[in-house]
Amino acid sequence: MMRNRMISELRIAADFDALAALTDPGQPWTRRSFTPMFDRGRDWVSRAFADAGLTVRTDAAGNMIGLRPGSDPAARGTILLGSHTDTVPGGGRFDGIAGVIAALEITRALDEAGVTLRHDLAVVDFLAEEVSGFGVSCIGSRGMAGIMPSEWLDRTWEGRSLREAITSVGGNPEALGGALSEPLNGPLRAYLELHIEQGTRLERAGLDLGLVRAIAGITRIEITVKGRPDHAGTTPMDARDDALVTAALLVGQLRAEGARTRDGRHFTTTVGEFEISPGAANVIPGHVRMLVDARAEARPDMEAFIAWTVDLAEATPGVAARVISDNPPVPMDEGLLAALTAAADAGGISHMPLTSGAGHDAAYMARLGPAAMVFVPSKDGRSHCAEEWTEIEQIALGAEVIARAVIALDQQDA
Amino acid sequence: MMRNRMISELRIAADFDALAALTDPGQPWTRRSFTPMFDRGRDWVSRAFADAGLTVRTDAAGNMIGLRPGSDPAARGTILLGSHTDTVPGGGRFDGIAGVIAALEITRALDEAGVTLRHDLAVVDFLAEEVSGFGVSCIGSRGMAGIMPSEWLDRTWEGRSLREAITSVGGNPEALGGALSEPLNGPLRAYLELHIEQGTRLERAGLDLGLVRAIAGITRIEITVKGRPDHAGTTPMDARDDALVTAALLVGQLRAEGARTRDGRHFTTTVGEFEISPGAANVIPGHVRMLVDARAEARPDMEAFIAWTVDLAEATPGVAARVISDNPPVPMDEGLLAALTAAADAGGISHMPLTSGAGHDAAYMARLGPAAMVFVPSKDGRSHCAEEWTEIEQIALGAEVIARAVIALDQQDA
Repeated sequence: MMRNRMISELRIAADFDALAALTDPGQPWTRRSFTPMFDRGRDWVSRAFADAGLTVRTDAAGNMIGLRPGSDPAARGTILLGSHTDTVPGGGRFDGIAGVIAALEITRALDEAGVTLRHDLAVVDFLAEEVSGFGVSCIGSRGMAGIMPSEWLDRTWEGRSLREAITSVGGNPEALGGALSEPLNGPLRAYLELHIEQGTRLERAGLDLGLVRAIAGITRIEITVKGRPDHAGTTPMDARDDALVTAALLVGQLRAEGARTRDGRHFTTTVGEFEISPGAANVIPGHVRMLVDARAEARPDMEAFIAWTVDLAEATPGVAARVISDNPPVPMDEGLLAALTAAADAGGISHMPLTSGAGHDAAYMARLGPAAMVFVPSKDGRSHCAEEWTEIEQIALGAEVIARAVIALDQQDA
Repeated sequence: MMRNRMISELRIAADFDALAALTDPGQPWTRRSFTPMFDRGRDWVSRAFADAGLTVRTDAAGNMIGLRPGSDPAARGTILLGSHTDTVPGGGRFDGIAGVIAALEITRALDEAGVTLRHDLAVVDFLAEEVSGFGVSCIGSRGMAGIMPSEWLDRTWEGRSLREAITSVGGNPEALGGALSEPLNGPLRAYLELHIEQGTRLERAGLDLGLVRAIAGITRIEITVKGRPDHAGTTPMDARDDALVTAALLVGQLRAEGARTRDGRHFTTTVGEFEISPGAANVIPGHVRMLVDARAEARPDMEAFIAWTVDLAEATPGVAARVISDNPPVPMDEGLLAALTAAADAGGISHMPLTSGAGHDAAYMARLGPAAMVFVPSKDGRSHCAEEWTEIEQIALGAEVIARAVIALDQQDA
């Protein structure tokens, strides 16, 4: 067991309660970016940052940042900690929020322990990590990394452009385009993000933390099945070309191919969109469209899966497959993972390597410098729902490890 | 080969051309009940019936009837021939229409051949056999049989009630409720309906006619699958409860059970409605609803299938099955089938017994007296679409057999 814990579970619990109170009451827990409830959440974040002695400002991408200046002008590059406080509709109290509260608590714990850091330390609440009304995700972290497509600024939602919406939260869309110089103060020294796992691997393993070695690449493949929409009552079973029957077989094959072992490497396939037509009780389905979401930590696994899917489509009459989007995996930084591992081991906190199947702000921060994530257990793996839950003590263990790793990293280039 | 054919292919072809010209031009061939185009079709039917010497009127259910009075007051009961001239949207030129034109041609052929019948002979164009804007089918034949649910009259479409719509085509909804006395003139002596097969059995067998031994019973079973809508990227393949994967397996099992042999007895199963939710690319499907349409000529086959489906649902976690509607098969009259068989054999016209997988007006006429159907081949089995096609000479053969059977039936009770 780790002795002399820096992190306060009580302070963390109070922060969660305060943010959870700021929810659309009819749909707990909802605080979507660019809504009045999000603004109320940001008011709380701003006060909480200031109360912790941080210098608060909002960057051009609408990210809220609290700065704790370093002591050594020669120690270049900011150590950045954070995540996001926005939610999906009907989402939970932990996704993203845990990372911001952990980062905030780390600054308080460092102060309480009298720890001076050579480097600037900054806490960030990224704007609109979840898909907002504008239909896109990770606006703030993409913006900070300088890779948000400029045409996104013209997207509209409820009568406003994203340009106007970013301005309304204190951002400066005209300054977007390249990587933002603030708050990084030179190169990014490290980005560390605590996040709930959104899966059951930690819970099933009975371990405290997941040290994320990679954020999976996401590939989307659209599959269409063309059959013949004949009369359901008059067409004999052996004279049918039923697109749903063909598609159902493909669903099973995609599932089996996705589920086969890849020596423990993270791989998932999901058919989440599936529509048949004409969709009438007395007509044999003539057409099916489905969307396959595949995620891999290892690019060769994804390339093999894409080829397998294309082959399967070509081998099945009436079936066509088309890759809609294809993003490679993002490896986390080895040096940061070593520091996190050392901190956890020193404190007797159990851990395992994990791959993140979900996208995160960390994937964009990795473009600016070393980045890594720490996962804490999700009860029953639930997320993006009201049942989302992680024990406060589990979050505190993750924050403790990050705090200790920050102290170690701060000294590495001394 | 039959010598001395009574039926004129030329007259039949002219009738098809005339009715095909009455279509919504942007969506051939469309003449839905209760639309202005249907009224134009009815104007043509009325004139054609009158031109053939029939006495035209519309009954309380909105069916248009052309009467050819019999010669013998002691010969009670009308011999009724017909089908319907309404179509589905984008439907064809033959479904229903072939039966009305064949019936009309039979009266002309009898006149031309100088045949006097003892019984009244009537030609009927049933109202709204297809599902109209009011969402229900076989309004006219149900109404004539006295079994149209009275609450249907309050259904609305485009600002009118069905009550008003039936009135607008000349019907009298207030008189509906029991079986209509007109035009039957006592018990129904026989109802004979020529119809396109809407399947490929005749075409594949290379035979002229199908003599329908039963109209299949139709049972609809709703199956729901409850899974868990977890994150598509973070939930390992072995920790999922994917409702679509479960449902896909069921689709395959339902297909296999429907397709297994039942000693040649007609049986079909179709999943024509299939919806998943939440239907998002990055969420594992948490719920699926599907509707199974099953059709059987033998009631025990259907009862076994219902039991099998309920057992399957009970054996599969998260799955529930519920019978939504359950209508037994309607056997066709043995005496009429014998007369049709004799007429075909005498004329050297090939035939096979068939079951109708589709519902027809004949199913409701069977409640009033002896009923039977004659199927003619459908090219490629297509129906309810623009490609629907039957050769005029194939329709003429069916009409010829019905005409000869009518002459024989007319004498049977002399």
